[in-house]
Amino acid sequence: MQLRRGDVFETLEYKASDGIATIRLNRPEKRNAYNARMMNELVAAFDRSDADDDVGAVILTGSGDAFCAGADLSGGAGTFAQLSEDPERAALRHGGLWRDGGGVASLRIFESLKPVIAAINGPAIGVGATMILACDVRIASDTARFGYVFTQRGLVPEAASSWFLPRIVGLSRALEWTMGACMVAADEALEAGLVRELCARDDLIPRARAIARRFLSGSRVAAALTRQMMWRMAGAAHPMEAHRVDSRAIAALRSSPDTMEAVAAFLQKREANFASQVSDGMPDIWPDGSGPKFY
Amino acid sequence: MQLRRGDVFETLEYKASDGIATIRLNRPEKRNAYNARMMNELVAAFDRSDADDDVGAVILTGSGDAFCAGADLSGGAGTFAQLSEDPERAALRHGGLWRDGGGVASLRIFESLKPVIAAINGPAIGVGATMILACDVRIASDTARFGYVFTQRGLVPEAASSWFLPRIVGLSRALEWTMGACMVAADEALEAGLVRELCARDDLIPRARAIARRFLSGSRVAAALTRQMMWRMAGAAHPMEAHRVDSRAIAALRSSPDTMEAVAAFLQKREANFASQVSDGMPDIWPDGSGPKFY
Amino acid sequence: MQLRRGDVFETLEYKASDGIATIRLNRPEKRNAYNARMMNELVAAFDRSDADDDVGAVILTGSGDAFCAGADLSGGAGTFAQLSEDPERAALRHGGLWRDGGGVASLRIFESLKPVIAAINGPAIGVGATMILACDVRIASDTARFGYVFTQRGLVPEAASSWFLPRIVGLSRALEWTMGACMVAADEALEAGLVRELCARDDLIPRARAIARRFLSGSRVAAALTRQMMWRMAGAAHPMEAHRVDSRAIAALRSSPDTMEAVAAFLQKREANFASQVSDGMPDIWPDGSGPKFY
Repeated sequence: MQLRRGDVFETLEYKASDGIATIRLNRPEKRNAYNARMMNELVAAFDRSDADDDVGAVILTGSGDAFCAGADLSGGAGTFAQLSEDPERAALRHGGLWRDGGGVASLRIFESLKPVIAAINGPAIGVGATMILACDVRIASDTARFGYVFTQRGLVPEAASSWFLPRIVGLSRALEWTMGACMVAADEALEAGLVRELCARDDLIPRARAIARRFLSGSRVAAALTRQMMWRMAGAAHPMEAHRVDSRAIAALRSSPDTMEAVAAFLQKREANFASQVSDGMPDIWPDGSGPKFY
Repeated sequence: MQLRRGDVFETLEYKASDGIATIRLNRPEKRNAYNARMMNELVAAFDRSDADDDVGAVILTGSGDAFCAGADLSGGAGTFAQLSEDPERAALRHGGLWRDGGGVASLRIFESLKPVIAAINGPAIGVGATMILACDVRIASDTARFGYVFTQRGLVPEAASSWFLPRIVGLSRALEWTMGACMVAADEALEAGLVRELCARDDLIPRARAIARRFLSGSRVAAALTRQMMWRMAGAAHPMEAHRVDSRAIAALRSSPDTMEAVAAFLQKREANFASQVSDGMPDIWPDGSGPKFY
Repeated sequence: MQLRRGDVFETLEYKASDGIATIRLNRPEKRNAYNARMMNELVAAFDRSDADDDVGAVILTGSGDAFCAGADLSGGAGTFAQLSEDPERAALRHGGLWRDGGGVASLRIFESLKPVIAAINGPAIGVGATMILACDVRIASDTARFGYVFTQRGLVPEAASSWFLPRIVGLSRALEWTMGACMVAADEALEAGLVRELCARDDLIPRARAIARRFLSGSRVAAALTRQMMWRMAGAAHPMEAHRVDSRAIAALRSSPDTMEAVAAFLQKREANFASQVSDGMPDIWPDGSGPKFY
């Protein structure tokens, strides 16, 4: 069931305009509950935004009143056993090992070459509260709430949230929310730094687009490398690891057309016009290559 | 001198009721100063709370006006040389290498299978200010203060606090407090996130019990795994490490009695009744096993 | 061009008094723009403060209205290609690999044996906004602003800032500021924790000196080890790594003259008089030695 470009999405809506792609979870009758199809479509949607050079930022949001109600439990007690990775993808990429379905989407977002803004339009429960963590910026409607309710389902927090959540809200909050199966209100989410701002439901998408536009004017290749570097070095043991990557990146970029144009524009006191595109290939800055894709 | 279950504690009081164990440092005439006996008794007390399936959360607090005045210096200049690990334990577990005595207790708390709330009832100095860092939640009396005074003793911060403190209050505060040998007031501790709330001395234990109760209703095995995952992944290099652990955990839990019960309760709109107990064994989710116990 | 002690600085001013060294970026006619000479002089200045036992803390600031306007672009489009490491140093230390020039200074500050306070007297742009991240405390004039403008130059954030910045302001801010090429105002820097306080321009150095004095009274060797431990363990995978280092440090210090003096002073209720000096050698606490110097 691995999706190919051009396949029609059943669980998502994908639109792009003015340099911004919008990926909308689109099962409003199920409060956008997550299933295996949605997981595969999310991977395919981010493949599409990465491949489209007209797209410089991505908004992830939901249709209707909820952002995502969590795993679709309408199938009853077998639900979590069914919500596994597509076997074809698993066999292809990971030797057939069973993998958490929430993590597949989160790791795909982690690898996005474009900045991702989560615009959380309502309740985000379970995997809905964890898939937003690999996004770069989170804003929410004041109707949102965040349900880290896993231990109340007999489960643990998934989607690599034990890596993401402490790095966003700090270790103390992450422990309290997940061990206490907390339903976090919008204002506590704001205060804890889980979201950068709250706004009225109707203002959410315009506000997300305003934030997205800030990411459109710089060098696209530089922005994509910056995104990789920040996320990966957040877990690195020593700053020397960052220095090695910096050195490779700057050696690759310092005489590039984008940098030449930037210095010329600076000296001429005009705006720079960047031409690089991630589809032309990213500089090789990672000591072991950019590594296997984990999604 | 390794303590066995049933040994009488000399430096601590251990009580359990209503699902909550309370471990109370109990040398009030010495302001609960830390010594080798207390270190070994702390390890034994957390062994006891882990083994007692009736216990779902632990409160760590002190008797009298102080939480812990630090290492007991009444022995004079030889104090820090004496405050070493029990040789029997060292030989058994660590080939006889000398180990910091504060770290033995902190690493034991780090490995607790139950959430731990520190209720800091007064000054917490030296090892008193570091042993609280491996707890999950910290609340304090407004009479508390926190003395990261190690460099004024000719020493460095111990009890693995160079790992814990930056992850709780951020790197800038951790550097300033420890290099400056700061005595941190209660309100600065609150503002920095070292404690989640302050309250009057008489309200401290009732408040700690209210927080502890939030951890009692979910699946016990899921909560214990969640605690391990959050603490360990806070230091992991890449989210893929978390994804591997998530996948093993969810594969182990997705058809478990607790999860089946949770989904049934959800669909029947009733509260779930979880039956799993950590004493029945924890699922094997760590790639290299759960590893040696470091305490 | 590697500088030796005693060489005259062209781009910096170095002064020491009352236990505090002040390193001042000193190209005010160029708004203290960074060039290869400044990089090498910064390394030499921190070599000097480390070697001077009369110095217990360092202040890093700038002359004139700006802190540092970034890389000196007056050379035109070839600038970034020129701003490489001194070849003599590169060949000596790193097999001649090209290295980012901002990182050389930041990694030198990272290795400082004395606490470093950045007193940011005005705009800090590009490498000016990243060289401050390896300092322990940052305060700023209310005329300061912080330009993480790299993607607008076709470049990525350098000076190992992908390691430092998320650990100081959190991952969400770090992503937003760098991918958005943000010019961060003084008050946002305060709110985000990039600086600990703002003050009027004229109060900046007196305030920095007041903070520096707090670092002068403890054991110098203990403070230097504490600095190394906090910075290095902020990236460590597991608290056991900190525990091993703690144990080695306390084993080395527990019977040292500084600790003996501290305990005696404590029991006699007087101030301690510490005599240890980092120039006498640092205890060997790192499992693999203190490692190669990366600057």
